[in-house]
This record gives sequence, structure tokens and C-alpha cells, in this order.
Amino acid sequence: MKAEIIAVGTELLVGDIVNTNAQFIARELFSLGIDVFYQTVVGDNPKRLTEAIEHAFSRADLVIFSGGLGPTEDDLTKETVSAYFGVPLLFHEEIWTQIRTYLKDACPESNRKQACIPQGGRILSNYCGTAPGVIVEQGDKIAILLPGPPRELMPMFTKQVIPYLEEKSAFVMRSKILRLFGIGEARVGEELADLMACANPTVAPYAKDYEVILRIAAKAENGDAADVMIEQMEQKIRNRIGEYVYGYGEETMAKTTGMLLLSKGLTVACAESCTAGLLTGALGDIPGISAVLQESIVTYSNEAKIKYLGVSPDTLRTYGAVSRETAEEMARGIQAKTGAHIGISVTGIAGPDGGTAEKPVGLVYVGVCYQDCVTIRALQLKGDRLQVRQSAVMHALDEVRCRILAQEG
Amino acid sequence: MKAEIIAVGTELLVGDIVNTNAQFIARELFSLGIDVFYQTVVGDNPKRLTEAIEHAFSRADLVIFSGGLGPTEDDLTKETVSAYFGVPLLFHEEIWTQIRTYLKDACPESNRKQACIPQGGRILSNYCGTAPGVIVEQGDKIAILLPGPPRELMPMFTKQVIPYLEEKSAFVMRSKILRLFGIGEARVGEELADLMACANPTVAPYAKDYEVILRIAAKAENGDAADVMIEQMEQKIRNRIGEYVYGYGEETMAKTTGMLLLSKGLTVACAESCTAGLLTGALGDIPGISAVLQESIVTYSNEAKIKYLGVSPDTLRTYGAVSRETAEEMARGIQAKTGAHIGISVTGIAGPDGGTAEKPVGLVYVGVCYQDCVTIRALQLKGDRLQVRQSAVMHALDEVRCRILAQEG
Repeated sequence: MKAEIIAVGTELLVGDIVNTNAQFIARELFSLGIDVFYQTVVGDNPKRLTEAIEHAFSRADLVIFSGGLGPTEDDLTKETVSAYFGVPLLFHEEIWTQIRTYLKDACPESNRKQACIPQGGRILSNYCGTAPGVIVEQGDKIAILLPGPPRELMPMFTKQVIPYLEEKSAFVMRSKILRLFGIGEARVGEELADLMACANPTVAPYAKDYEVILRIAAKAENGDAADVMIEQMEQKIRNRIGEYVYGYGEETMAKTTGMLLLSKGLTVACAESCTAGLLTGALGDIPGISAVLQESIVTYSNEAKIKYLGVSPDTLRTYGAVSRETAEEMARGIQAKTGAHIGISVTGIAGPDGGTAEKPVGLVYVGVCYQDCVTIRALQLKGDRLQVRQSAVMHALDEVRCRILAQEG
Repeated sequence: MKAEIIAVGTELLVGDIVNTNAQFIARELFSLGIDVFYQTVVGDNPKRLTEAIEHAFSRADLVIFSGGLGPTEDDLTKETVSAYFGVPLLFHEEIWTQIRTYLKDACPESNRKQACIPQGGRILSNYCGTAPGVIVEQGDKIAILLPGPPRELMPMFTKQVIPYLEEKSAFVMRSKILRLFGIGEARVGEELADLMACANPTVAPYAKDYEVILRIAAKAENGDAADVMIEQMEQKIRNRIGEYVYGYGEETMAKTTGMLLLSKGLTVACAESCTAGLLTGALGDIPGISAVLQESIVTYSNEAKIKYLGVSPDTLRTYGAVSRETAEEMARGIQAKTGAHIGISVTGIAGPDGGTAEKPVGLVYVGVCYQDCVTIRALQLKGDRLQVRQSAVMHALDEVRCRILAQEG
């Protein structure tokens, strides 16, 4: 099956927004083993949309549309697709009732068009909005119409379009995400080159800041068979680079470390210099973190390091604020001051200024004090000021994670 | 002039990356007054790329390509465009020398193809990479080939393509960005509806989290005339919603507030609860901020608020941690403890749990203590946990900004 993606919307043509829907849909189709050779963006213009549809169906069997299902005059996808297929649009009373319920009767008449569906079309429920999606089949052509807003399109696609496509192809698709830290994308590509060339299951990298995300996707006759294929592929990946795998799915480094702290009841406190609160802020994104996080201090100046953490003025004078020695005293200091199980310190040169030959921009020390033992990561991080700081946060969380797991094992 | 955008790259087709280049180019063309009716994504396949080129030039005069200028076998944009135009690719020794210099002689022979340019093509220098861009003209057709990586494409476009297009059209384009906070996009659209319908200058909104960005772009015979048009449009906007304009260009709220603190030598310290360090972290992104930021405290628990800030246990018992009263004591407390000119406090319910009927999720109080006077913003913020916290950071910075400016005026 060959597919094309058509994103409808003048806001895309004039660059008001970026086309994240195309990426999302493309990624899902790739995992389903459906080839996509073209993606198109066209405006809210029936003539040009018709031209795009005709061109797409001359090359592909499946065309997926996003956008143009709204209540305004500019929203024309259903009308144009219906005209292309030569079928009328029919008003569905039950959809109109649903729309009015969703909008709590503050519902302009203009929304009525959203309750119209091409004759014979299969309705896709919208969990987070008013516009239902539609699947229209005619001969060997399939058109899938989805709402523009990503938060409406994505659940509709995941919950209804994927099962539909699986059914069409008599297979099911399962996927699993591995999250890796401490290894670069180029090296992952080298280590897994042959696995990434595999057609089923597929292994695809996502570009992410500071980490590498791998998505394993398998197609099989049923879910269990697909899961087995994924496990086997995961094992192959782990055999080669397993030490870098820190989590799955949406479990970010912050979430992974936060959940580890919570599950073990280990309290934590941070003494932050260059990260200036981003480390504690990352932990703060975990619901329930208050059970293990009560306080942290941003000790941005040398005086603050002395005052709050008991860092020795001699140490600062001899080794400087950005040093292994200061990082150790900060970690011990915050642990002692707060009584937390784990004290974390970060001190570094985020840039763009402040670097020297001996201590260049990007030099960062992370300290973790746990069970009276301090480990230090000495890092040379790349990127601009924000990137150095965010990378430092990742390393700090990873060091905590590794220390706790080392204690277990 | 009608233009189309063709992004070349299989990584786009399979959803590995999102097409930010198309948005960037589209936005620039819109500001230049050049119509774009279609955007296409095609893979690293000469047959399909040729088809896309033919189709595009059947409808448009100008086609802008991104991607496919790299040194690998998959990089085929120059070859395919040259074949379309029926011109040979010529090797340019001086470009090869530049490439070898840029890569410091660690330069594989495969990079040689990057030194080949379609005969008659105008070379566009690459400030941040090895692949030069090219402009090819034939009859009334223009093809502009740009490298795929956004950090290479964007400066090349801004510094060389825009002047070229201005020259072609005998006009120049200038633009100015206004940043607004405290007003929603829908209301901006209503207030400025007639201005947004204007063809020259144009006023276009960008979708942004927590704020509204407006871009005014004017075309005129020369820069001064364009600047005058922009000023006049800016004045019209300010007459209607000027109170919400807080900055220009890339001056984020954090940068605007940070620069204000630095310029006035006003030191600041934060007492953060739900934001857990994100507020201080935002200020920490401003180079040189250490001149006015020495310390902040994340007082996540009630005990920490008492211990570090002297918040009264009675206040916490009577009004709760998330209250105007606690926010005031936190702001006074951090100011007194640190001796900073300005003390900022944030306390709230970020969610998803912790809300009640009286104090729902999203309830946040921001306090600013300055010159012994505390002002409180009582907020009901929308979104998930991270959105509530980041929105709170914006409000806190804005309150500081407003307090300082009120003191001036």
C-alpha cells in the first residue's frame, strides 16, 4: 500500500505553524510498513486542494488529510473530498447532538457543517474536539480525514486509524521506545546499522536533545507475535549498547530518576550553581515528588556556597568554584544541611563568557553524595548556554540514577 | 511571483524529523509578499524528485529546495535540478578549497561533490557547514537550493536569499517582531482583524506558549520607507493593545526582565514552591546575570518555608501554603534573608493532583517584594503540570518587570 499525506491549511503555507502532524503520521505509517513517497501542504482553497487530491490518488492508494474540518468558511476538506469521490455530504443528527453537548450548547450554527459526513464514510470520534474524522473508501482508494489540531489528531489516529489500517492489512503493529543516554546518535547508527536496515521489525532513531530515542516497531499476525519480535530486537540492541538504555516510552530521565527516588523513599536536595534551578525544576515536574523533595538551594555566588553549604573559602580560592573539590563540598554540604538521603551538586561554566584555557566553556562538575560517599562526574559539555545547563541536568539525574541502581545491584 | 517549497529528504518522509525549514521559508516568503500555494516533501529519489520539480514549475516561477546537498550517495538535489534544467554540474576548485579548510583537511573525497555547482548557478556561501547553496535561473524559472540543516539554511536565506529576492522585485523587506504577554491570541485576532488583513505591511501572529508574537513586515522601495511603514503599523497596534507589548525580537520575558535588573543594578532572589527552580533557572539563562543573582531557594515543603523564609506556621495553618498571605510572607522572607533588592515568591497547585473546590489545580500566587512593598498576582492558570509552572514563571517575571517600570514612571 502506498500512502500520501496532505496537510490542509493556509496557516501552514504562510509559516504560522510548523507541520508536526505530517511527522506524526509519517512515523506511524513507517512503523505500519506503509510507504510514503510524498507529503503535500496546500491551503484552504478548493481548486488547489482538488488538484492535490487528484495528483495524490494518481500515485497512491491511501491519502491521509489533516486540517480543514473546522466550522468556518475556510474549512473545506470534507466538501472537496466528497466532490472528488462524487458523493454527497449527509447531515448526521447524532453527531450534531454530540457537538452541542461538547460545546455545552454555546454552539453556533456554523458548527452544523461539522456534523456532515460524506455518504458511506466511516466516522472517527474526536475525543478532544468537535470535528469527527472520516474514512472514505471507493474502489481501491482510501481517504482518511483528520482534524488539524495535533491534540485531536493524535489520539484519533492512535485509537482508531491504526486499528483500521491493521485490519486492512490483516496484521497488527506494536511498538516500543527505548531511551538511551551517554551515547551519540552517530555511534548508535554505527553499532546498529544492520538492525536499522531491517524491514520488520523496524528500528528508527528520533532526534532528541541530549539523548537518543529508538523506536522498535513490529508487524505480525497478532499482538503476541509482534511483541515477541520486539523483545528479540530489543535484546539484540541491548547486547550491543544496553548499558546506555535508561528507560522506555515517555519515561524521561527526570521521570525515571524521580520515580526511582519515590519508589525507594530516598529524599533528595540539590545545590545548583550554573543550572540555577533547572535541575530541581526538572524533578519538580514529577507529580508526587514532594514526598522526596523538600528544599533545594541555588548557590549562584561563591558567598552563597559558603553561607548555605559550608564550602570552604580556601577550597574556592585554591581550586575555584568550578572544580571537583568544590562540587564535592557542595554535595556534602547540601546533604548535611538538609538531611536528605542524597545531595546533588552542579557547578560549571555555561558560557558564552567565563571560559579560560584551563577551564573552558562547557566544563561542568556534577557531584552526588549518597551514603556518605561522593562521586563526581567531570564533564565537557557542548552547545550554547542553555544547552550546557540542560545537558548538565541530564547528567546529574543520570548520576543519581546510576548511584541508586549500583547500590541495589 | 508564485513560489513552491520542496523539502528533500527521506528522514522527513518517515517522520524522523519535523519540517521546520518549510515553516521558516514560508514565513519569509509571506513577509516578502511572495505567494506560496503548495509545499512538498519528497525523498532522496531522483525520479520522484524530478516529478516534483516538473509539477512545481508547471504552477510556479520560483521553487525553493531544502536538503539533499550533502556528501553522501543519497544527496541528489543538485544533480536532479541540473538535469531538469539541462545544464552540467561543474567542479569549482575554490569551493573545494573552502570545504577542505572548513573540515580542516579531515575531508573525505565524498565531499568533492559538494564543490560541484550547476553551470551558470549563483553560489550561496554556507556560514556553518560545507554545502554551498545555489541559485539557478533559466528563462522565468528560478530554483534556489539550500542545505537541509536549519542552522545552515536560515543564515544563508536571511543573508543572501532575501537580498536576492528583494533585488528581483525591486523592493526591500523589513520586519519587526512585537512580543505580547497577558492577552490571548483570539483577542489579539479580534482587536487587530483589519490590520491583519492588510497586504503591505503584513501583520502575522506566531503561535507561542504563554505569549503572543506578532511580526510586522513591510515591502518598500528602500529600507527607510519600509521602516516608516513598520513604525506606523506598530503605532496602530500599540494604540489598541500596547499595554500588552513587553518586548521586541528575540527578547524573551526572561531576557527582558533580566536585562532590566542588570541595567538598574537591582539584585533579585526567588523563593519558589511549585515552580521548583524554573523561575531562577529562567533568569540563569541570561549571560552576566550573576551580577544581580546570588542565591535562590526552592522551599517546596511547608517546613522549608518556615525554616528558610520565616513564614509563620500560623499563616500556613490558617490560609494554607497556596494563599496570598503565604506568598506575601515568602516574598518578604526571601528579600529579608538575602538582602536582595527584589524578592520573588511563587506558590501554587501545579496539578494534576492537589486541587480542591476552593483551591483548584492552576491556582498560583506570585509575590514581588520591592522597596518594602509586596504586590501579589492571584492567577488561575491553564494546562498540565509543566504548563502551569512555566506560565507561573512568565507571570512572576512580568510582575517584576512591571514593578520596576512602575517605579520609573
